[in-house]
Amino acid sequence: MLGQKRIRDHGLKIGVMETGPRNSITDIEGVAVGHCTILSDHVRTGVTAVIPHEGNLFREKLPASSHVINGFGKSTGLLQIEELGTIETPILLTNTFGVGSCINGLIRYMLEDNPDIGISTGTVNPVVLECNDGYLNDIRGMHVRQEHVMEALSNARRDFLEGSVGGGTGMSCYQLKGGIGTSSRVLHFAGHDCRYSLGVLVQSNFGKIGDFVCKGKKFTDYVPGFSTNGNDAKVQGSIIVVIGTDLPLNGRQLKRVCKRASVGINRTGSFIENGSGEIAIAFSTAQRIPHYPGILSLPFSVLSEDLIDNVFRAVAEAVEEAILNSMICADPMYGRAGNYRASLQNWIERLV
Amino acid sequence: MLGQKRIRDHGLKIGVMETGPRNSITDIEGVAVGHCTILSDHVRTGVTAVIPHEGNLFREKLPASSHVINGFGKSTGLLQIEELGTIETPILLTNTFGVGSCINGLIRYMLEDNPDIGISTGTVNPVVLECNDGYLNDIRGMHVRQEHVMEALSNARRDFLEGSVGGGTGMSCYQLKGGIGTSSRVLHFAGHDCRYSLGVLVQSNFGKIGDFVCKGKKFTDYVPGFSTNGNDAKVQGSIIVVIGTDLPLNGRQLKRVCKRASVGINRTGSFIENGSGEIAIAFSTAQRIPHYPGILSLPFSVLSEDLIDNVFRAVAEAVEEAILNSMICADPMYGRAGNYRASLQNWIERLV
Amino acid sequence: MLGQKRIRDHGLKIGVMETGPRNSITDIEGVAVGHCTILSDHVRTGVTAVIPHEGNLFREKLPASSHVINGFGKSTGLLQIEELGTIETPILLTNTFGVGSCINGLIRYMLEDNPDIGISTGTVNPVVLECNDGYLNDIRGMHVRQEHVMEALSNARRDFLEGSVGGGTGMSCYQLKGGIGTSSRVLHFAGHDCRYSLGVLVQSNFGKIGDFVCKGKKFTDYVPGFSTNGNDAKVQGSIIVVIGTDLPLNGRQLKRVCKRASVGINRTGSFIENGSGEIAIAFSTAQRIPHYPGILSLPFSVLSEDLIDNVFRAVAEAVEEAILNSMICADPMYGRAGNYRASLQNWIERLV
Amino acid sequence: MLGQKRIRDHGLKIGVMETGPRNSITDIEGVAVGHCTILSDHVRTGVTAVIPHEGNLFREKLPASSHVINGFGKSTGLLQIEELGTIETPILLTNTFGVGSCINGLIRYMLEDNPDIGISTGTVNPVVLECNDGYLNDIRGMHVRQEHVMEALSNARRDFLEGSVGGGTGMSCYQLKGGIGTSSRVLHFAGHDCRYSLGVLVQSNFGKIGDFVCKGKKFTDYVPGFSTNGNDAKVQGSIIVVIGTDLPLNGRQLKRVCKRASVGINRTGSFIENGSGEIAIAFSTAQRIPHYPGILSLPFSVLSEDLIDNVFRAVAEAVEEAILNSMICADPMYGRAGNYRASLQNWIERLV
Repeated sequence: MLGQKRIRDHGLKIGVMETGPRNSITDIEGVAVGHCTILSDHVRTGVTAVIPHEGNLFREKLPASSHVINGFGKSTGLLQIEELGTIETPILLTNTFGVGSCINGLIRYMLEDNPDIGISTGTVNPVVLECNDGYLNDIRGMHVRQEHVMEALSNARRDFLEGSVGGGTGMSCYQLKGGIGTSSRVLHFAGHDCRYSLGVLVQSNFGKIGDFVCKGKKFTDYVPGFSTNGNDAKVQGSIIVVIGTDLPLNGRQLKRVCKRASVGINRTGSFIENGSGEIAIAFSTAQRIPHYPGILSLPFSVLSEDLIDNVFRAVAEAVEEAILNSMICADPMYGRAGNYRASLQNWIERLV
Repeated sequence: MLGQKRIRDHGLKIGVMETGPRNSITDIEGVAVGHCTILSDHVRTGVTAVIPHEGNLFREKLPASSHVINGFGKSTGLLQIEELGTIETPILLTNTFGVGSCINGLIRYMLEDNPDIGISTGTVNPVVLECNDGYLNDIRGMHVRQEHVMEALSNARRDFLEGSVGGGTGMSCYQLKGGIGTSSRVLHFAGHDCRYSLGVLVQSNFGKIGDFVCKGKKFTDYVPGFSTNGNDAKVQGSIIVVIGTDLPLNGRQLKRVCKRASVGINRTGSFIENGSGEIAIAFSTAQRIPHYPGILSLPFSVLSEDLIDNVFRAVAEAVEEAILNSMICADPMYGRAGNYRASLQNWIERLV
Repeated sequence: MLGQKRIRDHGLKIGVMETGPRNSITDIEGVAVGHCTILSDHVRTGVTAVIPHEGNLFREKLPASSHVINGFGKSTGLLQIEELGTIETPILLTNTFGVGSCINGLIRYMLEDNPDIGISTGTVNPVVLECNDGYLNDIRGMHVRQEHVMEALSNARRDFLEGSVGGGTGMSCYQLKGGIGTSSRVLHFAGHDCRYSLGVLVQSNFGKIGDFVCKGKKFTDYVPGFSTNGNDAKVQGSIIVVIGTDLPLNGRQLKRVCKRASVGINRTGSFIENGSGEIAIAFSTAQRIPHYPGILSLPFSVLSEDLIDNVFRAVAEAVEEAILNSMICADPMYGRAGNYRASLQNWIERLV
Repeated sequence: MLGQKRIRDHGLKIGVMETGPRNSITDIEGVAVGHCTILSDHVRTGVTAVIPHEGNLFREKLPASSHVINGFGKSTGLLQIEELGTIETPILLTNTFGVGSCINGLIRYMLEDNPDIGISTGTVNPVVLECNDGYLNDIRGMHVRQEHVMEALSNARRDFLEGSVGGGTGMSCYQLKGGIGTSSRVLHFAGHDCRYSLGVLVQSNFGKIGDFVCKGKKFTDYVPGFSTNGNDAKVQGSIIVVIGTDLPLNGRQLKRVCKRASVGINRTGSFIENGSGEIAIAFSTAQRIPHYPGILSLPFSVLSEDLIDNVFRAVAEAVEEAILNSMICADPMYGRAGNYRASLQNWIERLV
């Protein structure tokens, strides 16, 4: 976004469904995304914040769920989402060793607006997801600090950059430059006069170049001599997928939606490598769950299950496109120890 | 029930909550229970059917969930409940080798009322749960047949026998006679003018006598010389717990409720043995989910999570009492190969 | 096999790894496959048996695991595999309403060789997996009987037919004819002088034609006017994936392998539809676990986790190829109510 | 320990099995426990470290597993344990808002000894478990810092204090003072000449006084007028259970062992409340899994499953005793806002 040339701008249309006006997770009313990018010397990292709604998330939680495609990862906050089916903080994306500081920053952010936490009510469940950017970034330096969290959160808006920004700054995807990408789909249901949206944001950091498929075409068939010239065969990847929608879905349905994230990932060629921590998390903005309900039971609206294939298809398409956006929006980058990632930008013309 | 002397009639009051009028899972409006008992020579087995509501369950499903406490078991139908959060058939309890015939019988029962199944709509998910009654029953003889399923289903009503009946016929519990037991609790919520019920039905077939605790008292402390005189040390047990409620709970909440079944089981002394298949399944009758919804989304009512402890306490109490009812209502029994199970009836006076 | 023209014989090479000599799950030493096909009037169904080793499986169990990709299904036997990490019977594939009879047949088959079951030891855990063949088959007629199980088991050998045979007889895949398919891969590990095999067998019954992708090519791009001319838009599918290997993998690793089955499925175009019960089950023949161990602990060999990507890649490739084999080996078929499935054979030349 | 009067010293013998020499998790050879207690003004918190073996845990991992009894909690590190079945860092226990700092401290601790992490190999998975000590502690102050982690780790040894120390400093249990407790059991197997140990350490912070049962006796029956005089009815609890053993168990078996932790918890009266985050984590020291295996497959020894009941019983007993030790070793404490917790010490004589 914000003037970046995205995968569709190169003529590659992913899937058959209509995209939202921004083709972004922020097409969901109320969702905002902010970055804090940390760049210096051998530091290539940062924090990306996805804010599910503009209100007080602790007081007005959203239905949520997650799915661990491959658990070689250190993300945090998923236990409680699984148990209670709700999310009560923004979602942060960062590097593997930034999780601790992001937890601390996110707790402080929540404490500010909620003087009851830890006094007259319980605690709060920070959600922080991560990938290992150690190939380009000095991850051992643990450069993410609490103030970076605050900056990412305060930067949140509907229009935001993709590629090497925020948590995506130092990420690699298929041994090319990866990072943050987004995409969305509009959902119509035959016979029902309504219009819903589903959006996806990824932090991409997985895969080997030999497996990369761009819209059905194998990259190495078009770029035969490609070499990373790096000692990165053993580098462990990951991908985080954040899914937002204004459809009335409950926790169980959101988990089913999360499980279809792998379809979109697989369409780019990967086979879920051993070292790739692959996690999807989803929330619905259609209804809010009060922290202090004060009533016996809450009215809730739940999408008819026989209409859910439409949602599954949207996720698969949007995840594939978000990954490609994360790559095409990322410029080439040198990082730690002279390590280098080329950009998909260099070869995209051969693939279209 | 039906004139049987239950654990409360012996002066043992379990827990602190009020029971329903029948102290039975059939205190939930619409729930009915039926048995078919198969007794001959060395045959001691049968089928028990729990019917969650009196309508067409396939067309009007109920929210449901299950939890596997220990998966050394062969129950069937739980996969789809986990995925879709609904139940669409009665629940059958039988012996381990009766599952196949119960599936067949239950499918035929469902086909009768639903000519669309397998033609213009999908199939149906039969739910059959089991324990191994091989100590008293000739389980290798595979004596459960489809007509026994029909009989159990047609016998279903609100008042039913406990102990050695239906699926509980040949079951053992703590090396005494076990079988079918039930109990219920009434739920009030402070500040809310309402009254809900939760009922439990168990098929008990687990534990060793040395572990048996009856309301805080260890059985072998009161009956020191007890011996089963049998070679049953290696016999594998199991317990099935069926939970029904008219509270508005969704699938996720019903799973949480299922997980508290283990609290009630543990209160009778067991420690979840390796060979004990322990499974809980729960449904809510508060709302029905149509097979053909015809609308985009269904309105649903969901209990405020901060009120759920009341439900958890009810489950723990009702499960403990249902197990004791299954034992105290069962007469002593001789079975296959001269194997014998004494009844808790013989010693209950020492324990009260 | 057995003279059938498979997908490779049409010039479509799937993936980059070497196949085994039969390109079949029976490339794993000791594995055998047998069918019983039931054809008459409007009956198009059957049973396929996968026998993991030629010995007494109850006495010498194999490490096993399963993974439910989408749980809209009625398969049975997975609970105990999850708990104990072992398989102790052959694996049967059949139609959704054949599960009961397959359970009964499989139990009887196991009882024959094991007089201790149900007498001096516990019971046995039959594993039966299913798809809904109701589009072509009179599934309501419940035509699978116990003798069909015995026939499938007694027919088991290393060479067997693919396509519309056994459990695959009435199956549909991408609205074309589906059924049984198999494929295998040979595994080499750099720096280790050894050779292992992994084989896959599928019962394919999922997907819509508009999604079908054959080796990166969208079917409807090559066959634009294709129509099933049937009222099958609402038909629910499924796919069962059976994975065997002689690699020393434990239950946890086998579960990870099962999870990669979805990669191969997705490569054929599907997005895991709501109504598609997708289940993978895997076993390793490298080591046997005695029912009566008699020793304190069992020696076990476990593949180094950092070598497992090779296995994941093999599964993805073999599943994709097995699905295509299941389709290309199936002749066109008329079934119940005049319903018809064309064969991939008709258009394969346009796709190669 | 260290001169503290434990529950057994009061004449309360829990269970029937023999305890280890220290009756502690440190009866497992190589296991060490260290505390850092943070006390000042309204601060009542800290960190407890359990070190599973004295070597380089990253290079020589241990088989491990965990089980979430109730997921109302913010513990971290469990995803990867579930996927890979190994633990590669010490285990830290702290307060809910100390998790971030503990992650940071633990990463730094691991980086010190492992210069390859983040450079030539992947990252490391810190394991930090938590309870909410907000009733006595100024949890909003976020007083746990990285140096506290270092102190706890450097204090680790075989003899250590129980009660209000380390992570247990500000914890409450059954509205009395809770904290850190430990216990162990010796395992003999009939017919096998060997001796194994299983030890448990808990951070107890759960339950309401009305539910508390001490060795079968209800506390409020013996102390009828007890009142906490505090507004703590809504306070959320939790319990963390760490289990160590020198038995040769694999990840799947360790998960089964973890599941029996709830039996011991339940024996003290609780019914797994909604707000109680209850998590068990277990490791085996019998075998180490090298980070750089260098060989194709690792030899492994796995306990015969039919002997595992002995282990389950040991866990249930040791968890119950560890909880009681955590309470009896804790002195009464005043904390934040004048909140107060009495000690079980005051009434223990009425209960014995």
